[in-house]
Amino acid sequence: MPNPSQFTSPIEWKDGIVRMLDQSRLPAETVYIECKDAETVAKGIIKLWIRGAPAIGVAGAMGLALAAQTIPADNFQDFKQRLQPVFKLLSSTRPTAVNLFWALDRMEVLIDKLKDKPVDEIRKRLVSAAIELHREIGVQDQAIGRHGAELIPDQSGILTHCNTGALATGGIGTALGVLFTAWENGKRFTVFADETRPMLQGARLTMWELKNFGIPSVLITDNMAGALMKEGKIQACIVGADRIAANGDTANKIGTYSLAVLARAHGIPFYVAAPTSTVDLSTESGEAIPIEKRNSDEVTTVLGKVRIAPDNVEVANPAFDVTPAELITAIVTEKGILKPGDLKNKIKDRHF
Amino acid sequence: MPNPSQFTSPIEWKDGIVRMLDQSRLPAETVYIECKDAETVAKGIIKLWIRGAPAIGVAGAMGLALAAQTIPADNFQDFKQRLQPVFKLLSSTRPTAVNLFWALDRMEVLIDKLKDKPVDEIRKRLVSAAIELHREIGVQDQAIGRHGAELIPDQSGILTHCNTGALATGGIGTALGVLFTAWENGKRFTVFADETRPMLQGARLTMWELKNFGIPSVLITDNMAGALMKEGKIQACIVGADRIAANGDTANKIGTYSLAVLARAHGIPFYVAAPTSTVDLSTESGEAIPIEKRNSDEVTTVLGKVRIAPDNVEVANPAFDVTPAELITAIVTEKGILKPGDLKNKIKDRHF
Repeated sequence: MPNPSQFTSPIEWKDGIVRMLDQSRLPAETVYIECKDAETVAKGIIKLWIRGAPAIGVAGAMGLALAAQTIPADNFQDFKQRLQPVFKLLSSTRPTAVNLFWALDRMEVLIDKLKDKPVDEIRKRLVSAAIELHREIGVQDQAIGRHGAELIPDQSGILTHCNTGALATGGIGTALGVLFTAWENGKRFTVFADETRPMLQGARLTMWELKNFGIPSVLITDNMAGALMKEGKIQACIVGADRIAANGDTANKIGTYSLAVLARAHGIPFYVAAPTSTVDLSTESGEAIPIEKRNSDEVTTVLGKVRIAPDNVEVANPAFDVTPAELITAIVTEKGILKPGDLKNKIKDRHF
Repeated sequence: MPNPSQFTSPIEWKDGIVRMLDQSRLPAETVYIECKDAETVAKGIIKLWIRGAPAIGVAGAMGLALAAQTIPADNFQDFKQRLQPVFKLLSSTRPTAVNLFWALDRMEVLIDKLKDKPVDEIRKRLVSAAIELHREIGVQDQAIGRHGAELIPDQSGILTHCNTGALATGGIGTALGVLFTAWENGKRFTVFADETRPMLQGARLTMWELKNFGIPSVLITDNMAGALMKEGKIQACIVGADRIAANGDTANKIGTYSLAVLARAHGIPFYVAAPTSTVDLSTESGEAIPIEKRNSDEVTTVLGKVRIAPDNVEVANPAFDVTPAELITAIVTEKGILKPGDLKNKIKDRHF
């Protein structure tokens, strides 16, 4: 099983502050931001210093815990009331990944549970809860990896999209965690990584993590995936998820839907790997998942550094798309390998 | 009908030299290269100063004509022999677009036809032939536009890939020429332009030409096409071609195949627009079309300006892919709208 210490962690609680790796600068620069307040954490989520559904959840919990340390309050009512704007701030950062709301909900439930405790104790418990949530994700990642590794064919080519490694979760990753685990178990394969425009998480982050781990990998532009499938170079696709609706429809990084259609047309299995905290039973189907539209500069420039289009052009920039359940072969969770249609029955609660 | 003078021409024969627009710098800079010899023309083709299958054909013919002016030779045999390395140089620049070989073949056939003429007359005739070839492409583009315009639905969304406008042909363009003509004919639509990684011809060139012409257009990353189709925003796809095999299989810019699969999955017609000089009857099927593999820097950087991947990563960079005939609704040529399976019967000769 891959050891989490082999990976670069995207976020840590350390000596009362949140140390966040600025992933927007990877792989060229390794810069850590010291977040001393929830505002800086919120900024980091918006600016993609931290990204990846599970990691955003950790950031949300830690951001809330940070605010809880410094908010002046003598009694529970006061404390809870003053934290409301912080909940609002953090939950308004990004709309699609449900793990953020899940993590914030969990913190709120804990606060209510501790309503008879002294405020200073609640402050401490919120820090412990954020750290515990981070630790749990690590344990879940390992279970996802263990279950999913069995799906990876030996001597194969595997296509992945965006980044789903340690950087995206704070554990060993989801889809990449499966690949790390399969590799440790002796499976041999080549990973084809979509560069994943506009923000290039595949080129910048996935290639970096695969190279660091030592798995053979090939970088491709997003539009090459179909041609590689046609040439017989891909035996399975595996991606992460930002929100999975009750019926199994899955929102993930823009481009995932196209890959799923292409995989189906070529008879290639298409797997989603995600913790059950990514499943949102309150959202019936994919149509109800809010899709974040991001700034046009992400498309008209590359990482804000090179302009690639004429001035004043119209742009579409949905950050995610929805892959219907019928195109998903299986969803790998920490509870095992589930068929998309079985989610509702297998996942009854949201762990709190 | 759109007037060619509305467009920026990528190449002109002027006062004994070839004036080539350096498209690799568009839209940021408009720089013309004055090519005084075939070597500079060859360099321009390799470095993508000029690109687009028909325009590469024009460049090949003009490059050959340039060399013919200065090559010292007193007699026909000498003249023809000394031109052989120039044919070799020009034909070795890029392997996939057949128009280059078609244009060079045409020049060679002309040379042989003029074998009894004085060398100085042959020199002049080669210049006229190159200029005539350019003019013919312009006429063909207008016919392609006229035929294809009928296929464009009014009040629709049209998806295109790479660049197929005036910059790609020296006329009004192929797929974009169809859209320019349809617009002039009163059809109203929005063009969704794939940015077309790695070299971003869609973002840089197609968006520039559409904006200059005044057609509403939306820039998207390549991986957004499927999601837009699913949302019902695309009513037709139209692309160009670099080589069409006898059975209708079509090589075009990498990513075209994925689009065709996606279009089929969504019941959207998929059109190819190209002059019949792009049809290569000597190539039976797509499997026999040579696919150019380009430098890995095109993928690991953006336009050589920003590095987006770790050092020393493996890359796949096929410049083209092959769309099988069965995914192509129709091929729009200057001779009319053809079914891919009818090419063989309808196109008997290669115009020389």
